[in-house]
Amino acid sequence: MSLLVMKFGGTSVANIDRIRNAALRVGEEVARGHDVIVIVSAMAGKTNELAGMVEEISPLHDAREYDAVVSSGETVTAGLMALILQEMDIPARSWQGWQVPLLTSSAHSAARISEIPTENINAKFSEGMKVAVVAGFQGLSPEGRITTIGRGGSDTTAVAFAAAFNAERCDIHTDVDGIYTTDPRICEKARKLDKIAFEEMLELASLGAKVLQTRSVELAMRYNVRLRVLSSFETAGKTAGTLVCAEEEIMESSIVNGIAHSRDEAKLTLVSVADRPGIAATIFGALSDAGVTVDMIVQNISEEGRTDLTFSCPTSELARARNALDGIRADGRLNFHDLITDTDVAKISAVGIGMRSQSGVAAQMFRTLSNEGINIKVISTSEIKISVLIEKKYMELAVQALHDSFELDSAG
Amino acid sequence: MSLLVMKFGGTSVANIDRIRNAALRVGEEVARGHDVIVIVSAMAGKTNELAGMVEEISPLHDAREYDAVVSSGETVTAGLMALILQEMDIPARSWQGWQVPLLTSSAHSAARISEIPTENINAKFSEGMKVAVVAGFQGLSPEGRITTIGRGGSDTTAVAFAAAFNAERCDIHTDVDGIYTTDPRICEKARKLDKIAFEEMLELASLGAKVLQTRSVELAMRYNVRLRVLSSFETAGKTAGTLVCAEEEIMESSIVNGIAHSRDEAKLTLVSVADRPGIAATIFGALSDAGVTVDMIVQNISEEGRTDLTFSCPTSELARARNALDGIRADGRLNFHDLITDTDVAKISAVGIGMRSQSGVAAQMFRTLSNEGINIKVISTSEIKISVLIEKKYMELAVQALHDSFELDSAG
Repeated sequence: MSLLVMKFGGTSVANIDRIRNAALRVGEEVARGHDVIVIVSAMAGKTNELAGMVEEISPLHDAREYDAVVSSGETVTAGLMALILQEMDIPARSWQGWQVPLLTSSAHSAARISEIPTENINAKFSEGMKVAVVAGFQGLSPEGRITTIGRGGSDTTAVAFAAAFNAERCDIHTDVDGIYTTDPRICEKARKLDKIAFEEMLELASLGAKVLQTRSVELAMRYNVRLRVLSSFETAGKTAGTLVCAEEEIMESSIVNGIAHSRDEAKLTLVSVADRPGIAATIFGALSDAGVTVDMIVQNISEEGRTDLTFSCPTSELARARNALDGIRADGRLNFHDLITDTDVAKISAVGIGMRSQSGVAAQMFRTLSNEGINIKVISTSEIKISVLIEKKYMELAVQALHDSFELDSAG
Repeated sequence: MSLLVMKFGGTSVANIDRIRNAALRVGEEVARGHDVIVIVSAMAGKTNELAGMVEEISPLHDAREYDAVVSSGETVTAGLMALILQEMDIPARSWQGWQVPLLTSSAHSAARISEIPTENINAKFSEGMKVAVVAGFQGLSPEGRITTIGRGGSDTTAVAFAAAFNAERCDIHTDVDGIYTTDPRICEKARKLDKIAFEEMLELASLGAKVLQTRSVELAMRYNVRLRVLSSFETAGKTAGTLVCAEEEIMESSIVNGIAHSRDEAKLTLVSVADRPGIAATIFGALSDAGVTVDMIVQNISEEGRTDLTFSCPTSELARARNALDGIRADGRLNFHDLITDTDVAKISAVGIGMRSQSGVAAQMFRTLSNEGINIKVISTSEIKISVLIEKKYMELAVQALHDSFELDSAG
């Protein structure tokens, strides 16, 4: 008997009709002979409503009580889903995190999953249960308190169950029908990918293609859990979504598989910093302490012992970054002539596993942008990704031009 | 260190401001040196909202899933209350039913409390916790599933905790400021009682004075838990509410302590039933099987082997009662000439422990009603109660006249 994990996000269970629709998808897989573990989120809006009440009481709340309160949203959806499945004559029951139990660390509101014993649920499968509906996002701490594993944690819950139960596949039902070569709202030629490698998905997820939680993709890669992203709103059978899997499952990797973009970037340049050992550690240590997520870092050549240092971070963290840098300048740990900031930038990235074995990708990217008259402000590369910062107004044009240049509208 | 149990119902925790107000009451008791176990209901309307979703999915739902869903309302209030207490610098934490654990039978949605081990909560009290906030209404079945103990079960939860922890008192905070000699909306001379005996409260509760769950009073009487009913909306200290306690605590019992009334009564008369052994068992067995709650039963004298039999039940159960009686008539188990029903009746009851040692109470009651020109349709008496059915339009008049006649407006 093969087992599937199916996860439904908040918009897919936003009301009873949508839960019914999701249950029909589960029923199809049961009819195909699968046992199914369903992971559900809270009904759309519920978690925010509950978190809002806690925030109203206390911005500096006890995270253990926060977790007990906000996790109740998933509890409700799990019970309702089990009831709907039972109405469809499918033997089903709900499981709260502590009943499984999904064991976690004590880091409330951001707990790490430590173990998912399979005995309790498997015992029910062998008694004839076909579907275990599990409340996502919830766990149990070593102290016996309810934990939650962070916002968006239901994706991670689903992958963890797929790994623990050695599931054939983990289907993530969401409000998009798969992973695209780029954002269809920007580029009408965007094409849905049939398959994408974990590594590519990780680069795309962290670049702002907000379909899957980065953490869930990391976990899937570590345990080689085949993830399928698909829409819960499409007519049954119409779409197979996109399979996120190991590189080996993809016959012929494209050189570039996706063009990602992000508007939420700020560029900071420290002008004329003393270029001596330890100075980068001072700067980025202070930024890290201030909770600034630094993305790209570029250091120009040094002249007369001084250099310019440029980095990027999310726009929302710009003020914090500036404070941190002014702080270490004020206490004498850092000396620089000027701090220039620029929020009129966008980040464009080309991602593809094929880059590893193919040269000339960067050159093609720069040539394409140059042909459109787009100036490149910062460049950063990794093994399977090339990112550039450009002027914000050229973002759409850049995405479309690169999508054409790398022929992403045609499969293979 | 003495321990109090304080229970707050749905209207007393309907929003964050009201939970704050309730928390202030808890804080006052902590300041007096008490450890406190707080039992909370779901925020007003929540349980109905959750139950409504379950009903929408399936009228014949799995009670285990129903319990998992509806109990989440209490979980949320418990967490919010704990957070507010912490904001007031009072060491507090929330407990869900399964965490205590409050052990129950497997009769989901109407579970009986079997045991409340005190170890877990007492361990936290000895570590310095001052308030344990417990989600009412919830329990844990022997199978490890969430149970609920029936609507209004938070009163019962509170009394059970008071019994298990040997609490000094159990304060039930509600939207009225105590137990009255009669309904103040009907009789402006109604007076709040300082004390009332368990037995009297039981008669009043089951007669429609809906302040306390009958079951919680029964439990309080069995374990001699001193119950105090008081309003959570009054200014602190303004009212001491009403103490429900053992008869021995009440120095001088009044002959009559309260006049109760109920509009929700239907009178049924079976005309000319064969008066032979076993016939009453047939009739009331069939009514019981049909889920009809029979209240008063009166049988007239027999003539020529036939008799008239009158009983009352809640109006909402009249149709079911009629069906049940027609059923046993159709299958030949019962023979009667006619079934006369009457929903134009109200029940008036005088309750008082002093009746036990005092004769003439019934005579005084009948004389009072007669003086007002009110005809009595059915009479039923118990050791501490006399009930009559009268025409509905005379209900207010009867309550006022009896309240005057037994001088309930003056204490003692």
